[in-house]
Amino acid sequence: MNWQPSLRDPFAFTQVDIRQDEHSHAAEHRSINLAISERGFSALRRLDPLLEAQVREQAIPMHGRMIHAVDGKQTSQAYDVFGKHISSVERSALIKVLLDEAGRQARVSMHFGHELVDIDFDLRRVTLRDKESGQQFVAEADLIVGADGAYSRVRQRMMTKVMMNYSQTYIEHGYCEFSMAAAADGEFAMDPGHLHIWPRGSFMLIALPNRDGSFTCTLFMPWREFDQLRSSEEAVKFFRANFPDALDRMGEKSVCAEYARNPKGSLVYVKCSPHTYKNRAVILGDAAHAMVPFYGQGMNCGFEDVEKLDEIMVGVLQRSGARNSTQTVELTDEQLLWALDEYSATRSADTDAIVDLALDNYVEMRAKVVSYPYLLRKHVEGLLHRLFPTAVIPLYTMVSFTSIPYSAVIRQWSRQTLWIRRSIYAAAAALALGAGAVTARLLGLRLPTLSELARVFSHHG
Amino acid sequence: MNWQPSLRDPFAFTQVDIRQDEHSHAAEHRSINLAISERGFSALRRLDPLLEAQVREQAIPMHGRMIHAVDGKQTSQAYDVFGKHISSVERSALIKVLLDEAGRQARVSMHFGHELVDIDFDLRRVTLRDKESGQQFVAEADLIVGADGAYSRVRQRMMTKVMMNYSQTYIEHGYCEFSMAAAADGEFAMDPGHLHIWPRGSFMLIALPNRDGSFTCTLFMPWREFDQLRSSEEAVKFFRANFPDALDRMGEKSVCAEYARNPKGSLVYVKCSPHTYKNRAVILGDAAHAMVPFYGQGMNCGFEDVEKLDEIMVGVLQRSGARNSTQTVELTDEQLLWALDEYSATRSADTDAIVDLALDNYVEMRAKVVSYPYLLRKHVEGLLHRLFPTAVIPLYTMVSFTSIPYSAVIRQWSRQTLWIRRSIYAAAAALALGAGAVTARLLGLRLPTLSELARVFSHHG
Repeated sequence: MNWQPSLRDPFAFTQVDIRQDEHSHAAEHRSINLAISERGFSALRRLDPLLEAQVREQAIPMHGRMIHAVDGKQTSQAYDVFGKHISSVERSALIKVLLDEAGRQARVSMHFGHELVDIDFDLRRVTLRDKESGQQFVAEADLIVGADGAYSRVRQRMMTKVMMNYSQTYIEHGYCEFSMAAAADGEFAMDPGHLHIWPRGSFMLIALPNRDGSFTCTLFMPWREFDQLRSSEEAVKFFRANFPDALDRMGEKSVCAEYARNPKGSLVYVKCSPHTYKNRAVILGDAAHAMVPFYGQGMNCGFEDVEKLDEIMVGVLQRSGARNSTQTVELTDEQLLWALDEYSATRSADTDAIVDLALDNYVEMRAKVVSYPYLLRKHVEGLLHRLFPTAVIPLYTMVSFTSIPYSAVIRQWSRQTLWIRRSIYAAAAALALGAGAVTARLLGLRLPTLSELARVFSHHG
Repeated sequence: MNWQPSLRDPFAFTQVDIRQDEHSHAAEHRSINLAISERGFSALRRLDPLLEAQVREQAIPMHGRMIHAVDGKQTSQAYDVFGKHISSVERSALIKVLLDEAGRQARVSMHFGHELVDIDFDLRRVTLRDKESGQQFVAEADLIVGADGAYSRVRQRMMTKVMMNYSQTYIEHGYCEFSMAAAADGEFAMDPGHLHIWPRGSFMLIALPNRDGSFTCTLFMPWREFDQLRSSEEAVKFFRANFPDALDRMGEKSVCAEYARNPKGSLVYVKCSPHTYKNRAVILGDAAHAMVPFYGQGMNCGFEDVEKLDEIMVGVLQRSGARNSTQTVELTDEQLLWALDEYSATRSADTDAIVDLALDNYVEMRAKVVSYPYLLRKHVEGLLHRLFPTAVIPLYTMVSFTSIPYSAVIRQWSRQTLWIRRSIYAAAAALALGAGAVTARLLGLRLPTLSELARVFSHHG
């Protein structure tokens, strides 16, 4: 069993080499751009700070949400009171950086265009099929890492060996992508420093900037409403009524063509536990925790999986006396078993938490961002965060700009909710009391004494 | 598309013909006896009243729970104030009755020892493999009915075609079966008219009677406690400490041998929705709603699936003007689609409900049956049921002795919980008030006037 202090997978099997086939992902109808934030960058940094720098170079900072009203009025809502930002990065650009880096590792051998046929976990054997030639072959594996997405076959095979608690849930909304080309002068048609949202209650349109000056727009909507837009003409009418400023920038012709052509995607989330089978296999990323895309954490969480697993493995090696060097060291079967058990036990609580947070954030994006209670809390929390930067941290900040474990994020946020609610009530009560006192003075009424007040309150328990 | 007013499946593929191989189910380590109650009998009755009679002949009535204390003291808790009972039936006997009945249908062709290889739903083709010869063949099917258990392959294939919400959850308890032979005179070692329970808080032993005078006993316990009983000797010691009267009846030698030999089973429950794919396939029984065994409803619910599906199909035929006759009538593709959609939409809420109820009943059986609040409510509810037989119905009665849809059972039970709690509080308050008044009179105190009381209550809002 060979293991290096930093995660380097000796064999990597993947569907397609995107560097050879520019259109492969578009053909799979996967979204073009992704949001990357602290957790994603942190994992890249751990592998190599240069890798982080390379990705940052490709990324477009988004400092806040730009809320579009139906009348076209835009309102900026910063993501963070200290100016922190998330970034939009093109899926293909990111994959290229990662594949190039993997290719530079001497011990990594990459195989594209293969599909998993079967796994014999106990014999540590993986049967694969070359999709082009149809030829099957068997690979031996010390550890099988399944990062094969929401419909993971590795997970499916693990489920026949381990008592896995598993759930997959489709939300009753779907999505459709549209593009907004760059303006005639090649410039962005809207401010590229924001994630644009057209929140409309039960549905929304969002837009993320691309490096070529275009935006990728996504309409998220209940299926039953998609069902009502039976023709492209009806879709254009729908855009005209709900997103007129977006429609003007995208062009009726483009919206019409894309609504007809682009597939309507479903949104599923997956929770499971354990994420590992003995010391033989582990599932990472969407395979272990597919989530709805509304927190922009899907990829970030997947990258963090790798970081956490690596941390635990390196910890095992360090405790066993192995130097923290770049030389190849051995991880015993027992150490690997302990590390994978530890990973699964700690990680699944965190991945369950972000799956839930991502679901909640859909309601926030499509409805709450324009509601007064939400905005009030946002301002109070932002103010408290400014005053006590570590004691009170807004939810979005904890998720996107820190590496606080997701489950701890939920615990801290619940505590904050309680205290902020109390503060708001207290402030409202103080205001009301003050206003009452002033009114009483103006009317020449006698104010009750403290002891009289105390009596009133003691009666009401 | 041929369809008869009563459900008759033209082709049935099943693993094994239990009539040819007496030990097949024992070899699969499935439990030997099952509880059958009203829902199961109702479905049999719908097919043929003679079928119900045949099964009733084989069944042993159990009128209540017999609670065994550690000191061996037995307390009977009747299942129903009007004397209704559930029954213990041997799995193999029941299967034989059903297979014989199916065999008598001219249009049913049965094939044993086949396993499902693949399904092409759109071409309505099922590929099967004869497990003995290894030969594969293709069967054409108007409608594919997957009643293939908790690990259903039909469900697995459906999941690749339909956006199925699915969850499987293993509880952290396992089980192990033991037998209690008939006494030397061939008689039952305990009262056969009861389901015997040794409730011990976090774990329990239960026993159901068999027609040969024996009982089948099952120990349900957290895995971590099983892990602590590493040898058969420790298991015997454990029985001696917790179930001494059962151990005396079973014999140390038998418990020792069976603990070593019998597998420790896991307990999983499954929820999913939809249960159907277009007008091509439907999953029934454990395939759609595996549940923990604590309500004795697993098989009953599966039989009720068939009854509900048949009711819906017959309803479609009747509305379309087909006579309610025994002649073969056609169900159009559209009618079948409507019927399956209707079945899935209504049935999944009910099957989810019984999956939850079965889980809750584990806590009731292993802990609550000896708690005072539980017994108090049981008596109050029993009394109210006697007074108002249709207005108040105990939960157990609704589940086991009626065909009220499971989801309606949960709704009615929630309402009853509220009212019974209120009644108990009101009775307690009245008692306390009465006692207070008497005490006050005895002490010669002046009782407050009504207007004084009113003032006190108005202060406390």
